[in-house]
Amino acid sequence: MPPIQPETTGDGAEQNWGEPRRKTIAWHDPAETAKLGLTMSGLEFLRGMAAGVVPPPPISQVFDFRPVSVEVGDVVFSCEPDESAYNPIGVVHGGVVCTLLDTVTACAVHTTLAAGVAYTSLEIKVSYVRPVQVVPGRANTLTAHGWVTRPGRRAAFAEGDVRDVEGRVVATASSTCLVMGA
Amino acid sequence: MPPIQPETTGDGAEQNWGEPRRKTIAWHDPAETAKLGLTMSGLEFLRGMAAGVVPPPPISQVFDFRPVSVEVGDVVFSCEPDESAYNPIGVVHGGVVCTLLDTVTACAVHTTLAAGVAYTSLEIKVSYVRPVQVVPGRANTLTAHGWVTRPGRRAAFAEGDVRDVEGRVVATASSTCLVMGA
Amino acid sequence: MPPIQPETTGDGAEQNWGEPRRKTIAWHDPAETAKLGLTMSGLEFLRGMAAGVVPPPPISQVFDFRPVSVEVGDVVFSCEPDESAYNPIGVVHGGVVCTLLDTVTACAVHTTLAAGVAYTSLEIKVSYVRPVQVVPGRANTLTAHGWVTRPGRRAAFAEGDVRDVEGRVVATASSTCLVMGA
Amino acid sequence: MPPIQPETTGDGAEQNWGEPRRKTIAWHDPAETAKLGLTMSGLEFLRGMAAGVVPPPPISQVFDFRPVSVEVGDVVFSCEPDESAYNPIGVVHGGVVCTLLDTVTACAVHTTLAAGVAYTSLEIKVSYVRPVQVVPGRANTLTAHGWVTRPGRRAAFAEGDVRDVEGRVVATASSTCLVMGA
Repeated sequence: MPPIQPETTGDGAEQNWGEPRRKTIAWHDPAETAKLGLTMSGLEFLRGMAAGVVPPPPISQVFDFRPVSVEVGDVVFSCEPDESAYNPIGVVHGGVVCTLLDTVTACAVHTTLAAGVAYTSLEIKVSYVRPVQVVPGRANTLTAHGWVTRPGRRAAFAEGDVRDVEGRVVATASSTCLVMGA
Repeated sequence: MPPIQPETTGDGAEQNWGEPRRKTIAWHDPAETAKLGLTMSGLEFLRGMAAGVVPPPPISQVFDFRPVSVEVGDVVFSCEPDESAYNPIGVVHGGVVCTLLDTVTACAVHTTLAAGVAYTSLEIKVSYVRPVQVVPGRANTLTAHGWVTRPGRRAAFAEGDVRDVEGRVVATASSTCLVMGA
Repeated sequence: MPPIQPETTGDGAEQNWGEPRRKTIAWHDPAETAKLGLTMSGLEFLRGMAAGVVPPPPISQVFDFRPVSVEVGDVVFSCEPDESAYNPIGVVHGGVVCTLLDTVTACAVHTTLAAGVAYTSLEIKVSYVRPVQVVPGRANTLTAHGWVTRPGRRAAFAEGDVRDVEGRVVATASSTCLVMGA
Repeated sequence: MPPIQPETTGDGAEQNWGEPRRKTIAWHDPAETAKLGLTMSGLEFLRGMAAGVVPPPPISQVFDFRPVSVEVGDVVFSCEPDESAYNPIGVVHGGVVCTLLDTVTACAVHTTLAAGVAYTSLEIKVSYVRPVQVVPGRANTLTAHGWVTRPGRRAAFAEGDVRDVEGRVVATASSTCLVMGA
């Protein structure tokens, strides 16, 4: 098959599917956040973000992720998915759940690192243990928890889960990070 | 630590971090897409989406995912990440890569299913083999490829990779889907 | 390179590496165990194995796995690795840890199934969070714990960990099983 | 439930399940292998093992793993499973498949490392894409292939698959290793 030339545009307005729904997201220059990050420990950096003195990364705005608590080796974020995070069948897209879990496992590792120590995620595995049902007309807040199972100077391990408003686990994850010491 | 009350809002405009950058995303009622999906095989559905006659899911608009080719057991999508997909350090967020890989592995399985056969992703593992560098001022298109390693009536397996503009693999994935026959 | 023709045999006695060390393992016809399995719930079957009235599978004898407790959705096995499970550097081979984790996660799922319901592991991910040091001249018992995070009629999820004699987690795992109802 | 005291012994001879079947495995002092390993590159070490001049690790003898080819970043091993590797239902235990895949992915990484560079597996994920049927009375050789997807000074990625005698893929894996440079 030759490559398909999709006729859709980002705007989608030219289609016959009725009036598109819209949402505007806003973020700040991520370079600003990066500059601040170099001078702070992971704990200071993430608590600063939670307190509103460090600009959150753009991705947080896309999915409305917010830090709820930031401890050494343990973080909690909330996420309030709107319709833009849905699959066609009224279920939150797996990618949103992955992104949440990638965020909390990486941030949990970050809280264990001193200023000047870099890290990167090497891999993540996510188990989708329950569909994330979205009930229209009420809050569908997801709560993501990440914790370090093993910190380290060269590698660190973290796990995480996501719970729905009723406290049921909808997904679990494990992740490995590479740590690049000062 | 008591829960942190972040002072940020989705808009972010009240901060002192300068003028926020903004982007508007648009999508169509996902229920419309779902209704169409019930009447079509996976191959027809995804080719319909590629041809612009089935509305893409909202998540495609968030990250600008577009189908490039749709074959039985094999799909290719492109993604043009903008700054809203960055981490603070000029690298595409792992969650975007996960979302792309979750999409292409699931869609590859979907192309093997007849109309009326439902499926869901059970799990995915993503290996971040290279950072996804973003070079400002030029196209940074990512190409995601998903293929079925083993179709099935009850379970199906797929793998995938993401390549950067220079064709280097930046991430790989494997995923398992549950198939719920008609 | 042409295929290498290794000169070693299973016996290894012809080499100049000194007297080989030997161990003999014994097992019973696994078909016997299978026949019993068809008539029992998973809980009865595994408790029967623990009580010595169902023959253990051969693999249990290879690595000296023994059930310590068998509850619905939760099992504990012990493993006493000997030198045949070592890597060259005095560390237990990752494969032994994988085998233990594959066993306890699958058995945890099995305890939730009625007689006549079949299941199979679809995938497992193992994180090696600490090397499994072996101290010669003392017990190096590993304790593997598996628990179900989500039972199901079509798919089931389980997690597990392995601890050393000092109670430290040396590995964690997550696994997905396909359930094939009666 | 109180801990179960199993009445089985490693020997199993006291049971009423008929005459046990036995197999003796033999290996050499793994410390010898370790000493040789310190002086050789990964490629030399594994080729030496394939050629029979480096003693194989004990685990190779347990499952009858043999190197078939050893190239930079790419290795092939064979495995001839006997009844001691079976599950009760005539299927090779998942742990054997995991051990094979852990071996070939780790060895593929090892072939990329100079003498004196240490490494360890951080994690592995295995997808069991097909049951490994064993047909009595004929060779049931498994062929495991491991290859490096991304070498590195600090982390390395490898993938692998296992094929049955008919060349069908029965399992795939991805693994991450930590590299600890000289």
